[in-house]
Amino acid sequence: MLRVVLVNTRNPLNIGAAARAMSNFGVLSLRLVNPFEPSFREAKSAVGAAPVLQDAEVFASLAEAVADCTLVVGTSALEARNPELQAKSLQEAGDEISAKMRSGNVALVFGSEKRGLSNDDLNHCHFVTRIPTREEHGSMNLGQAVAVCLYEIARRGSSQPSLIAAPVLADAAILERINESLLEALKQSGYLKPSTAQNTRDNVRRLTRRLNLSAEDAELLLGMLRKIARKP
Amino acid sequence: MLRVVLVNTRNPLNIGAAARAMSNFGVLSLRLVNPFEPSFREAKSAVGAAPVLQDAEVFASLAEAVADCTLVVGTSALEARNPELQAKSLQEAGDEISAKMRSGNVALVFGSEKRGLSNDDLNHCHFVTRIPTREEHGSMNLGQAVAVCLYEIARRGSSQPSLIAAPVLADAAILERINESLLEALKQSGYLKPSTAQNTRDNVRRLTRRLNLSAEDAELLLGMLRKIARKP
Repeated sequence: MLRVVLVNTRNPLNIGAAARAMSNFGVLSLRLVNPFEPSFREAKSAVGAAPVLQDAEVFASLAEAVADCTLVVGTSALEARNPELQAKSLQEAGDEISAKMRSGNVALVFGSEKRGLSNDDLNHCHFVTRIPTREEHGSMNLGQAVAVCLYEIARRGSSQPSLIAAPVLADAAILERINESLLEALKQSGYLKPSTAQNTRDNVRRLTRRLNLSAEDAELLLGMLRKIARKP
Repeated sequence: MLRVVLVNTRNPLNIGAAARAMSNFGVLSLRLVNPFEPSFREAKSAVGAAPVLQDAEVFASLAEAVADCTLVVGTSALEARNPELQAKSLQEAGDEISAKMRSGNVALVFGSEKRGLSNDDLNHCHFVTRIPTREEHGSMNLGQAVAVCLYEIARRGSSQPSLIAAPVLADAAILERINESLLEALKQSGYLKPSTAQNTRDNVRRLTRRLNLSAEDAELLLGMLRKIARKP
């Protein structure tokens, strides 16, 4: 099971936002270490977050909050300040978290809005991960950082290819009929001039091949062109 | 260049949150279509978002906001309600957006907090993408959804430049002109019937977005259609 652990969070709206993102991605275990505002459960602005907030557990220390976890991953806006702590990209972290979640509890730990995780907090972590924000503006909003990390873990689960099958493409026969109808309409309109007719014919045929038409779109387009070419 | 387009956003705090996430991931072009609260630039709660908010551009319609974009991607909390619009996973969308950003502007479009994107809005999109939230609670906070989408694009980095230059794609403005000329020709030919006109208009707009036209082919096709539509 994945647990989100928020340490020393000041703003209850951020707790609500984190809970909403957790609910969105199906991560339902929220643990709070010393929340600044004990009335956080009343944060009502976060749509759908109420069940996660109701079940949230409060702890006095990070050690207690992660006691039942086999992997503890810290998050940091900057390069880890603790040189002895290994830093992994969020993708690497996502791989390891997904693997370890199968056999035990994993904690993903976020520090306070202003200061992030302290060195003391980081000492409880197996490694630290960093969202790839740009150097000039590295610090993310807490709720957004939670959403991004949980997405990175969730996307592995939903890695089934697109639900909608790729469209069947038009075959050469119908492309040729489109080509003929378009040429007929161009002829009627005066676009096709004797001096450049062959050139235009070549261009139109190549154009129809580049359109990447599905079989269905080809039928639609052919119907339109035939109607246009039949115009009195 | 990647542009984030927010349509009919009600809460200026959400605009500020979107701008902060954009700044975090180095995406600096924000476009707003009909923001409910014109004083959005004063949203002060979003740390570091001020430069993005100051430079934000406001438009009266989605068509104008995406006119200079060669790829327009809608976002949706649910499976696309528009069955004719192709849906891609966020990972697939990220691949395509990253590729197309090298040769033109790409718009990533987010609807209003309550309703998302309308069917009319979706008709301006080449495809729609969905963040893999769980069915029971699919709807994300707007600022968090922006953060997740931009992370998905940012995590690829700009590491591998494509070896083969991609063709410059047609932007939405010329696709809209193709759309108009084709409709005019269809009207003259009698294809466009009063009882089904709106349906045909929707179909034609979606068709033009699926053609994957290069800028050069779009000019060629537009010239043909204009000539055909002017036919006496």
